[in-house]
Amino acid sequence: MSNIAKGLEGVLFTESKLTFINGSEGILTHLGIPIQEWAEKSTFEELSLALLDGELPTAEELARFDADLKANRAIPDQLVQLIRDMPKGVHPMQALRTAVSYLGLLDAQAEDVTPEARRAISIRLIAQFSTIIAAINRAQEGQDIVPPRADLTHAGNYLYMLTGKEPTAEQARLFDIALVLHADHGMNASTFTAIATSSTLSDMYSCMVSAIGALKGPLHGGANEAVMDMLDEIGTVDKAEAYITKKLDNKEKIMGVGHRVYKNFDPRSRVLRDYAEVVANKEGKSDYYQILETIEKIIVDRIGAKGIYPNVDFYSGTVYSDLGIKKEYFTPIFALARISGWCASVIEYSRDNRLLRPDAVYTGATDAHYVEMQDRK
Amino acid sequence: MSNIAKGLEGVLFTESKLTFINGSEGILTHLGIPIQEWAEKSTFEELSLALLDGELPTAEELARFDADLKANRAIPDQLVQLIRDMPKGVHPMQALRTAVSYLGLLDAQAEDVTPEARRAISIRLIAQFSTIIAAINRAQEGQDIVPPRADLTHAGNYLYMLTGKEPTAEQARLFDIALVLHADHGMNASTFTAIATSSTLSDMYSCMVSAIGALKGPLHGGANEAVMDMLDEIGTVDKAEAYITKKLDNKEKIMGVGHRVYKNFDPRSRVLRDYAEVVANKEGKSDYYQILETIEKIIVDRIGAKGIYPNVDFYSGTVYSDLGIKKEYFTPIFALARISGWCASVIEYSRDNRLLRPDAVYTGATDAHYVEMQDRK
Ligand SMILES: CC(C)(COP(=O)(O)OP(=O)(O)OC[C@H]1O[C@@H](n2cnc3c(N)ncnc32)[C@H](O)[C@@H]1OP(=O)(O)O)[C@@H](O)C(=O)NCCC(=O)NCCS
Ligand SMILES: CC(C)(COP(=O)(O)OP(=O)(O)OC[C@H]1O[C@@H](n2cnc3c(N)ncnc32)[C@H](O)[C@@H]1OP(=O)(O)O)[C@@H](O)C(=O)NCCC(=O)NCCS
Repeated sequence: MSNIAKGLEGVLFTESKLTFINGSEGILTHLGIPIQEWAEKSTFEELSLALLDGELPTAEELARFDADLKANRAIPDQLVQLIRDMPKGVHPMQALRTAVSYLGLLDAQAEDVTPEARRAISIRLIAQFSTIIAAINRAQEGQDIVPPRADLTHAGNYLYMLTGKEPTAEQARLFDIALVLHADHGMNASTFTAIATSSTLSDMYSCMVSAIGALKGPLHGGANEAVMDMLDEIGTVDKAEAYITKKLDNKEKIMGVGHRVYKNFDPRSRVLRDYAEVVANKEGKSDYYQILETIEKIIVDRIGAKGIYPNVDFYSGTVYSDLGIKKEYFTPIFALARISGWCASVIEYSRDNRLLRPDAVYTGATDAHYVEMQDRK
Repeated sequence: MSNIAKGLEGVLFTESKLTFINGSEGILTHLGIPIQEWAEKSTFEELSLALLDGELPTAEELARFDADLKANRAIPDQLVQLIRDMPKGVHPMQALRTAVSYLGLLDAQAEDVTPEARRAISIRLIAQFSTIIAAINRAQEGQDIVPPRADLTHAGNYLYMLTGKEPTAEQARLFDIALVLHADHGMNASTFTAIATSSTLSDMYSCMVSAIGALKGPLHGGANEAVMDMLDEIGTVDKAEAYITKKLDNKEKIMGVGHRVYKNFDPRSRVLRDYAEVVANKEGKSDYYQILETIEKIIVDRIGAKGIYPNVDFYSGTVYSDLGIKKEYFTPIFALARISGWCASVIEYSRDNRLLRPDAVYTGATDAHYVEMQDRK
């Protein structure tokens, strides 16, 4: 069955001007600009707008976008109530999916699929995802929901709504960098699922809800939480080597390594490793960073030749932990960032839309007929 | 850009034993058995089970499945409350998407992605979709929600919950046939979106919610409602020709005709046309059927050579209307039937899962650099 493109690997289904990845050299650019420059010099707000509009904004455009985001941070009371009333202990991504779906019911513009409407809805959704995720986190822990503030950055405001305390400038900036690194990544599974939904000319909320569902899986966004589970299971650095060796011997997959496109270091993992190292050098920190370093060495030695290297999820968790984010919320945090890529990609695809409808090789029975019940078997 | 598979047309990404379509000859089979035989001899319950398990069930297996469906028709009180509290006038597919997402929060098994769990959840979802859709319909119209009955068929019970009255045997059977005709259809956009979501190893509820979002679009499930809008707009049969001719001259798309795979009559549209004709011959019926006949002739004459023929959505609406189903609920009715194909396809794909991650041709800027704000433009 050599003509089957399993997993659609390498299948080109559209054009895009947003993101370029060279997997063998470990290069990632947005609008042609390397991810390292975005991380160092830009902000999540600016990158989001650049993705939505396909170009670097002017100071005025960015100020207006920033003001729009701030003005749209609040979420409707009915949604706050829904989040408060959700059963405790639910998967945060199920909660996010439900909340965003419900928000669609409250948006009078929801059914408008023109590019202008899609863009306007995107701005509101980028702003509100943050509030929704923080609200779910606090409600699930039995805490009061903290309303957003308009005098903080997108990243800073999230940390504020999460903890109820204003973060330090350093914390807000570190989180901002993490959001920048996760904002877009080409035709990854969740972005692709959003596009598949939009290809029927469905609405923006449906697209985002689909993307949340796809991101949730452990082979995609769920991997960052799984990495943390692994670190907690390993416990101390002296146990890391035996643990990983055994897994590799058993041909089990290690979470946070491997990628469909990168067959070399994921450049995002390099940026995050540096921050993870800074975090680790602070006093009183756990063994996380050292365990990850040990695992990285073993992976590169043993299966690096197969193109398996640490990906973006490998070091992100230790950074999030340091910011007070619980591991159950790592995947929602991924959504908080990737929403920008989802929206921008849907808008880009919609400009020259074609229904996504691939095919399967039929391998079942042929020329069969319905058999009356009494004649079966 | 000839190497781009726009819309993934003709791209084979997996194997499947469920459904075979020969688009040029207008053939559709499930498990090798022609759709006409399924429609004539089987039931929605039997076809659903056959799709889930990949073979015709024994009498015992079918009885057990039927009992399972009946036992699972009720939906949790919290969900009933959510549906009651939804704002009036929302798009029924947004309501369905939200309700199914919420149901996931209440299912303790939701996170289990083993084939057995996926199958168990599928049975509950097939049963509950019906109750949810009827409840949304009644709640949106300000009516009391009618709880399910266990002594009716799946189709009959839906009509009962919708109208509060037991349908005639003829009505129940006609609706059953419509469900059979819509239960599965290969790698259509909503099934494909469900698979894309499941390919990250995400949960069953996320898959179904994604599929609902994709089905909602007017290029896919939303087309049946759009056909009815067109009929209402045309009004009387004498206006049909001028209306369609003008649309075709303006290169506008006619809803309910054309298909990615069928380049000839969709066999489902043939079955439905026969029933639509029966309905039309009853007394006091509107012009719907005659308008459709007129449109069909013009389409076949003018663009049949391009492979544009009536599809499943062309005649289904007139049948639904006759059963007392409002056009806003045609797409949810499509979901009520297609849930079986969605579940069966996700389970089949999961057995040999691979993450879906295609690629795009990058056409954007290269070698760009971040420009400081003061240096822009
Ligand atoms: C991301 C991922 C799904 C991409 O997978 P893919 O392109 O479908 O690759 P495959 O699963 O076909 O794997 C190709 C080979 O590499 C191996 N491999 C891939 N990921 C691996 C991992 N995480 N650990 C160990 N081996 C791995 C496979 O076993 C396979 O080996 P084989 O050829 O000897 O059978 C995969 O690398 C993975 O599951 N990684 C862990 C989850 C994760 O971190 N996801 C986040 C991505 S940002
Ligand atoms: C179903 C559908 C999306 C499949 O589309 P597709 O495979 O992407 O086909 P395209 O949109 O590329 O159309 C191919 C050609 O047929 C024409 N065409 C397709 N559907 C048409 C329609 N409904 N009315 C008029 N012309 C149509 C296109 O204009 C195009 O013509 P061109 O080559 O001269 O430009 C499309 O036929 C459609 O939009 N139909 C109406 C919606 C509908 O009924 N959907 C339910 C399907 S079950």
